[in-house]
Amino acid sequence: MGENGRVTSLGPGRPRIAPRRREGRTPRAEILDAAAELFTTQGYASTSTRGIADAVGIRQASLYHHFHAKDDILEALLEGTVSQPLELTEALRAEPAPAAVKLYALVRFDVAQLCAARWNLGALYLLPELRSPRFESFRRQRDELREHYERLAAEVVAEVVAEQGRASAPGVEVLPFRLVESVISIRSDEGRAPEYAERLIPDAVMQMLGRSGGDDVRAAAEELLARLGYPRAR
Amino acid sequence: MGENGRVTSLGPGRPRIAPRRREGRTPRAEILDAAAELFTTQGYASTSTRGIADAVGIRQASLYHHFHAKDDILEALLEGTVSQPLELTEALRAEPAPAAVKLYALVRFDVAQLCAARWNLGALYLLPELRSPRFESFRRQRDELREHYERLAAEVVAEVVAEQGRASAPGVEVLPFRLVESVISIRSDEGRAPEYAERLIPDAVMQMLGRSGGDDVRAAAEELLARLGYPRAR
Repeated sequence: MGENGRVTSLGPGRPRIAPRRREGRTPRAEILDAAAELFTTQGYASTSTRGIADAVGIRQASLYHHFHAKDDILEALLEGTVSQPLELTEALRAEPAPAAVKLYALVRFDVAQLCAARWNLGALYLLPELRSPRFESFRRQRDELREHYERLAAEVVAEVVAEQGRASAPGVEVLPFRLVESVISIRSDEGRAPEYAERLIPDAVMQMLGRSGGDDVRAAAEELLARLGYPRAR
Repeated sequence: MGENGRVTSLGPGRPRIAPRRREGRTPRAEILDAAAELFTTQGYASTSTRGIADAVGIRQASLYHHFHAKDDILEALLEGTVSQPLELTEALRAEPAPAAVKLYALVRFDVAQLCAARWNLGALYLLPELRSPRFESFRRQRDELREHYERLAAEVVAEVVAEQGRASAPGVEVLPFRLVESVISIRSDEGRAPEYAERLIPDAVMQMLGRSGGDDVRAAAEELLARLGYPRAR
């Protein structure tokens, strides 16, 4: 409970004495929030499940009711950083819009969700721990998202060649995904989420792919996102 | 010595029995190489000065002759990632070349040195430890480099407006530095340095800033780098 030792038994679902101090409406969400804070501010290796339980104000045994081990918590957090954009790529697949509009929508949405997250979890992508087989499933999901970006970007490059006769730098389709994830370093350096990036990065991606005249693409992308039930940009 | 305990005394400068297994021509360079490997493959928090000394094959006391503490080693490694591009920005300052040529040269050189480094040290930029006052000096150096990038990029944007009448996305001058540092994530994901990025990223930066016709800029940038005594691209 933060105030250690005041509560001796705390089964799942039992009302707690101390008020909740954490974001999240369920114990699971509170554990994830506390772990995300500790992993990003103290480091993953330096954080114990005991420390996470203390930060939530529950006993370690209660934490183990929700997660077997620290790496399960990390996996859940990491998957949370790619699950929404991955869902969006599925929804976009069936749409007849031009690739530029789909890519703009994906970039804008992904930047916004990386900015909106309470903790800068992408900073954990470079942990050496992530290279172990334990995180293969997460790596596969992030690879899948990366491939969606690359496929859409290659389609935009082809559209630009067809419509404007202009060729982009060969291999440029790998860079939109990287520009989106640069939100993570910007957020780390600036100490806060760069909300200006929700407009800047999609526009810069279009420009990088040689797609001039971003205004029409932006408007079409926002319309598409709204129609698919995704929140509008601020 | 790797083979622990065979050597009981190892003062600095004394010849060693076991052959060197590390990159680097001096004990200091060997310590840095071993630490870079351990920090990037095992994690910073999980690495001890004892582990570094063991990896070099020296006693911990000998390591302390070169570095007082683990954070001194990290600082030296981090500074090594920005020192060469910072020197280049100084050399570029006095040059009369257009901003596009200078920026192209800086991006190309910086990508190449991030690729050429034996370990992917930029992966350590997001460590929570780096936010402590201990690393203020390094943060200041990296900020200085970032500001150089932003100033040059803003000049390129102004050149493009003047020469081609085309305006870029407002704020785009913050992104070339981020695109350069995306080499770090690419390298982490692909498991090797993306040497194709030495051409791709400078070209994409120019395109992103609206500077079409990259070939002349590239040739001029390579000439400038050669004249300043910097190695040519592969």
